[in-house]
Amino acid sequence: MEDRYSIIGKDVPRNDAVAKATGAAAYTDDMKLPGMLHGKLLRSPLPHARIRRIDTSRAERLPGVKCVITGEDTPKVKYGNWRLFPTTQDEYPLAVDKVRFIGDEVAAVAAVDVDTALEALELIRVEYEELPAVFDVDAALAKTAPALHEASPTNISIDRKISYGDVERGFSASDYVREDTFTVHAVSPGYMEPCSSLALCDLDGRITLWTSTQTPYIVQCLLASTLGMRENDIRVIKPFVGGGFGGKMELRPWEFCAAFMARRTGRPVKFTLTRQEELCYGRRRHPMKLWSKVGFKKDGTLVAKDLKILLDGGAYNAMGPTATFLCGNFGAMLYRYPNYRFLGEHVYTNKAPASAMRGFGAPQSLFAAETQMNMAAEELGIDPIELRIKNAMVTGDEIPGVATISSCGFIESLQEAAKMSGWKRKRKNFKAGRGIGVGCYSFISGGVFNWFNTQYPFSAAEVRAFADGTVHLLTMASDIGQGSDTVLKQILAEELGLGMEDIRITSADTAMTPQADLGTWGSRVTLMGGGAVQNAARKIKEELFGTVSARFDLNVIFEMECRNGRVYAKGKPERGMTFGEAVALAQKARRGEPLVARGYYTPRDKGLVTPAFSFGAQVAEVEVDRETGIVSVKKMWTAHDCGTVINPMAVEGQLEGSIHMGLGYALSEELQVENGRTMNNTFLDYKMFTAEDMPPGESVCIETYEPEGPMGAKEAGEGLASPTAPAVAEAVYHATGYRCKDLPITPEKILKGMKK
Amino acid sequence: MEDRYSIIGKDVPRNDAVAKATGAAAYTDDMKLPGMLHGKLLRSPLPHARIRRIDTSRAERLPGVKCVITGEDTPKVKYGNWRLFPTTQDEYPLAVDKVRFIGDEVAAVAAVDVDTALEALELIRVEYEELPAVFDVDAALAKTAPALHEASPTNISIDRKISYGDVERGFSASDYVREDTFTVHAVSPGYMEPCSSLALCDLDGRITLWTSTQTPYIVQCLLASTLGMRENDIRVIKPFVGGGFGGKMELRPWEFCAAFMARRTGRPVKFTLTRQEELCYGRRRHPMKLWSKVGFKKDGTLVAKDLKILLDGGAYNAMGPTATFLCGNFGAMLYRYPNYRFLGEHVYTNKAPASAMRGFGAPQSLFAAETQMNMAAEELGIDPIELRIKNAMVTGDEIPGVATISSCGFIESLQEAAKMSGWKRKRKNFKAGRGIGVGCYSFISGGVFNWFNTQYPFSAAEVRAFADGTVHLLTMASDIGQGSDTVLKQILAEELGLGMEDIRITSADTAMTPQADLGTWGSRVTLMGGGAVQNAARKIKEELFGTVSARFDLNVIFEMECRNGRVYAKGKPERGMTFGEAVALAQKARRGEPLVARGYYTPRDKGLVTPAFSFGAQVAEVEVDRETGIVSVKKMWTAHDCGTVINPMAVEGQLEGSIHMGLGYALSEELQVENGRTMNNTFLDYKMFTAEDMPPGESVCIETYEPEGPMGAKEAGEGLASPTAPAVAEAVYHATGYRCKDLPITPEKILKGMKK
Repeated sequence: MEDRYSIIGKDVPRNDAVAKATGAAAYTDDMKLPGMLHGKLLRSPLPHARIRRIDTSRAERLPGVKCVITGEDTPKVKYGNWRLFPTTQDEYPLAVDKVRFIGDEVAAVAAVDVDTALEALELIRVEYEELPAVFDVDAALAKTAPALHEASPTNISIDRKISYGDVERGFSASDYVREDTFTVHAVSPGYMEPCSSLALCDLDGRITLWTSTQTPYIVQCLLASTLGMRENDIRVIKPFVGGGFGGKMELRPWEFCAAFMARRTGRPVKFTLTRQEELCYGRRRHPMKLWSKVGFKKDGTLVAKDLKILLDGGAYNAMGPTATFLCGNFGAMLYRYPNYRFLGEHVYTNKAPASAMRGFGAPQSLFAAETQMNMAAEELGIDPIELRIKNAMVTGDEIPGVATISSCGFIESLQEAAKMSGWKRKRKNFKAGRGIGVGCYSFISGGVFNWFNTQYPFSAAEVRAFADGTVHLLTMASDIGQGSDTVLKQILAEELGLGMEDIRITSADTAMTPQADLGTWGSRVTLMGGGAVQNAARKIKEELFGTVSARFDLNVIFEMECRNGRVYAKGKPERGMTFGEAVALAQKARRGEPLVARGYYTPRDKGLVTPAFSFGAQVAEVEVDRETGIVSVKKMWTAHDCGTVINPMAVEGQLEGSIHMGLGYALSEELQVENGRTMNNTFLDYKMFTAEDMPPGESVCIETYEPEGPMGAKEAGEGLASPTAPAVAEAVYHATGYRCKDLPITPEKILKGMKK
Repeated sequence: MEDRYSIIGKDVPRNDAVAKATGAAAYTDDMKLPGMLHGKLLRSPLPHARIRRIDTSRAERLPGVKCVITGEDTPKVKYGNWRLFPTTQDEYPLAVDKVRFIGDEVAAVAAVDVDTALEALELIRVEYEELPAVFDVDAALAKTAPALHEASPTNISIDRKISYGDVERGFSASDYVREDTFTVHAVSPGYMEPCSSLALCDLDGRITLWTSTQTPYIVQCLLASTLGMRENDIRVIKPFVGGGFGGKMELRPWEFCAAFMARRTGRPVKFTLTRQEELCYGRRRHPMKLWSKVGFKKDGTLVAKDLKILLDGGAYNAMGPTATFLCGNFGAMLYRYPNYRFLGEHVYTNKAPASAMRGFGAPQSLFAAETQMNMAAEELGIDPIELRIKNAMVTGDEIPGVATISSCGFIESLQEAAKMSGWKRKRKNFKAGRGIGVGCYSFISGGVFNWFNTQYPFSAAEVRAFADGTVHLLTMASDIGQGSDTVLKQILAEELGLGMEDIRITSADTAMTPQADLGTWGSRVTLMGGGAVQNAARKIKEELFGTVSARFDLNVIFEMECRNGRVYAKGKPERGMTFGEAVALAQKARRGEPLVARGYYTPRDKGLVTPAFSFGAQVAEVEVDRETGIVSVKKMWTAHDCGTVINPMAVEGQLEGSIHMGLGYALSEELQVENGRTMNNTFLDYKMFTAEDMPPGESVCIETYEPEGPMGAKEAGEGLASPTAPAVAEAVYHATGYRCKDLPITPEKILKGMKK
């Protein structure tokens, strides 16, 4: 390792670290343009209603109000990320005819300041005809339930089936079969930066939108279609973004309204959401109801699994189709299931839509699967880690028709987690109120299925090399705080033998960077964006190698290398020159034309899910106060396989963030929704773990080499959002005998569970 | 014409027209960044002095002052545009050891506001040792003259010789020989927007400089070398620019100071010059002393010319080397000189440096040449237009070793100007106080000689084509008000058969647009930038043609066409599709990779001067008040050959501006310099023609087809700065008998001349 790479595997500080630490980083809401207007949204107070009439006249007359719009003013084009299936596109930027959840966007105001805009909202009169509403999947699926959308009379908007082997025969052949039902709740991504968008309309009518997004290209395309404009008359720029976790990967109403009203008024228009809006109406992780039946041989060998999941999607599809798709895939991951069947149904309810959130279906599906595995282990009398190792996937395994496992360090992860945590000893020496549990995960390194129906490569990069020894990397990939700009620079620096300071990066500007990039979600950037960067860098290298070969009249058999700022024959380092000199010479050979290369990455022939899976195992140790039911997490041990570790410090950051989110998911976070209304609308009421609440942790990376990833890298950080909840639930069970099958694990549930 | 082109030859409104008319256009000084500091320069009050000591301590202590620098703080790297010959680079950003003119930059202050910065300037104490100074070329060339620069003990910094044929034998063989000495004066470019620069240093130490410049690439390179940074750690962006006329084509001290102090303070720093600074210390057109000897046969045939020019360069070379080079070339232009000799010497004097200004040596050289031609015509008894036609250059003519005339509408221009103006009648019917005169010009369409020693193509363009039927043009070419963005878009629209609204243009941003472009000077953008655009567009077309051919299974013999938004077989228009459909299909054929092409232009094998010359003739009619000597210009007629006219309205605008400047040069504008101090420091004292002063005009374009230019186009507008002064001088002579050989033509000179 030390020898092989110069920058890969090093703790390189993040590109944006200083800017963020000093406050120099400018987020969208920090931007001010001359003449800028401030926008605010009027939202539905009802969970389900027909709009009879909207009177905006009083609002329009309020001094300082420059523009008021409703759905009637707009082109009424539906949008949604699953462009490949237009019937899934079920959302209007502003409500047309109906509202479907408390918070549904009904009208927008742009005014000279925020106070005036808020005052104007109060002057808009909306006449509603209230309709019956449904707030959970059971109610939504009832025969008499009102349909939220005409196109989905049953309220099931999407279903997804997976089936291989013969599940019924599998169960017949099983020695031990169990069935469980699990429910999981809604949580908020809780990103630091509330959504913000600023639109500018130039004199040609083109729109530039600065927006806090994970997916500039998706926003560009969908904004164009909803505005009735051409894709490339829209330019989307992602400034610094304070987190997304899946919640900022779609076109959103304020992006549309900012652009629409900027065009209408000729003035820049900015919208920034409040924390209250984010918590009450923002995207959230899907609540699900999961039924799982699993069969084993006596010795613990898995034989069959049957999985049914109902996703509570809220009022619109959002990223629900992908979650529906993925929670079925994750039901079949980690272990070898010779027979598997999955049915997922995405159900509309009159609540704020759920969507992608770190894990994208995996945290829910794996909570159920891993908990069930722990329960089975107990009944089979096998150590839960042993049972996992027995059934664990290994490199080369295939999920029929879905995926091939091209690298897998799962067994090593399990072994290492057991070793680090002192698993065997702690499991045996049971001490009342103290427990230890295990949970595992696998995750994707970007998606293969082209639901957005992009016509472009999935990722793209342009590399411009200069005689001064620097390079400029241009990519539409979006650093939303996860550090992708740093990682992509590391990959480029390694390929070209340069230092981080030699690279300028321009990212996430749809007009300036090469088309296209699907954005930041599904842990896709390192593998796919990195693949594109590597591909571009290799084209540059080839040209430099040719130039240097000719200059030194090298035998064609020589391998060449870019390293330490030089380009040279590998066996004869003195036959070479600096990188800048090589570029200058290559440019001479091109008669002055600059050295530029584009690289692309599109996953082809990689199944239906992802080109590469990460794996990992996590052990949690807890102490439960038997009087209060309060859980105190003592320590977390994690061993995970993310392929080659490009930046250990960055991976550690991802891991810490994942545990933070995972503990919140397991123990403290829950959006309390009553009759469609989210009740906890501040961070005082919505309980995230603070820095003080965080337990110590220990971790190890099981390095494998992923052939599809740049330098062997694959996903790190998103998959880690999944193992914590089942690990903690098992530890609580170990400590108290209370088995949690409905997240979160609250003191009330523990106390009640212990009594039984 | 109508048939051949869709957009070329049409009056397309300028790209920036609405923005400028509405005030929406943001110039550099309109920009404000958070925490921005305001810079001011301390200038030398002496024309020539050694700096003994500078005490900035009091200025530094002034509250609100954030940075004070002198030459001692800087890396002390000299700069200058003639990078090919480093010895010509004679300027420091801030004075080191010596000052050489009143206004030489000595120190800079950055403070929280302009008032504080100005107050701080007054607190800087500079101890000077005054040195003897020289204020004109004769004084500077005297044996006892002080040397301004150690490297030029004679004060001649550059000389340039041209010689072909045998001038002495030519004069011996001549029937008529005359010798004249002319002098021309200093004028200001008088652009609307004073220079302004704003620098931002990012946390990596990279610099972004927004600056009012004609040459972003030159500023990038020279700023890098003076700061001791790498070229590509500097990004130069040209916002809207309010004119340059040659005066903004170099690195300037405030650009350096803004960048240097932004790095030092970590805060953005902006400098904006005052009109007084512009007039007193700004770049200006070279005053020259020209001695010309010319020999004719009795019948008017030109036989020989001997030309010596002393350029009064002021304290530094600036663009003087190019002016020295070009005024010699223009001495040999327009007519066939079988024997020609030129010696040009660029002389240092203790005045604000002269530099490029619209015409670049041609207005001075052609004032002398055309006046002498008019004088010779009188003495030979030949009509001045007839004499010109007799000797006029035609297509295919060669200036040995210097240039070939690849297109030439000079004779037609002379004929048309004579016809339009009623020349013959008016010349014969002499009426006291009323006169008519002619002057002609030729000019370059960009320079061939690589004085900047760029390693890149002279011009570059990137074209990105999209399935939505739009394209994005990226080019480093700089629209400084001349309209090049519009013209480049027209060329691209024509090539691709699109409308202007289908093209997004990004120009003049050194980090985002393709490397490189030498900038806006010497009328180079239409031909060179346009050539690069055409080259890129043709690559796109080739790909679309292949795609459409394959789609319709066309016989290889078919010619294809892009027009009216479609791509089709020329003979069978139904075999085709929309441009966007063709792009989408081509992209499919590339498996999603976007359709992008780069085009370049570098003049090769085009002699020493330019790839293409424009030509033209102008007639002026004047009335002179014989009591006051005041000249009233009644009308101007212009016939000129700029090849294919890409945008008639834009050419007309250039012509009107040229006449405006030409009349100022001839009659009213003069920087009054006394002992090195420019006395007229406001637009009240420096007299430019106002809109009301402007005479009516009539013009015609003699269309030729320039094989080297895009669609046959070549220079328009800069050459037209030359003919007005000699035409007006001849008209004044015709009206009064006063022959002006020393510009400007003032009432005093006329009254004095008439008396003789």
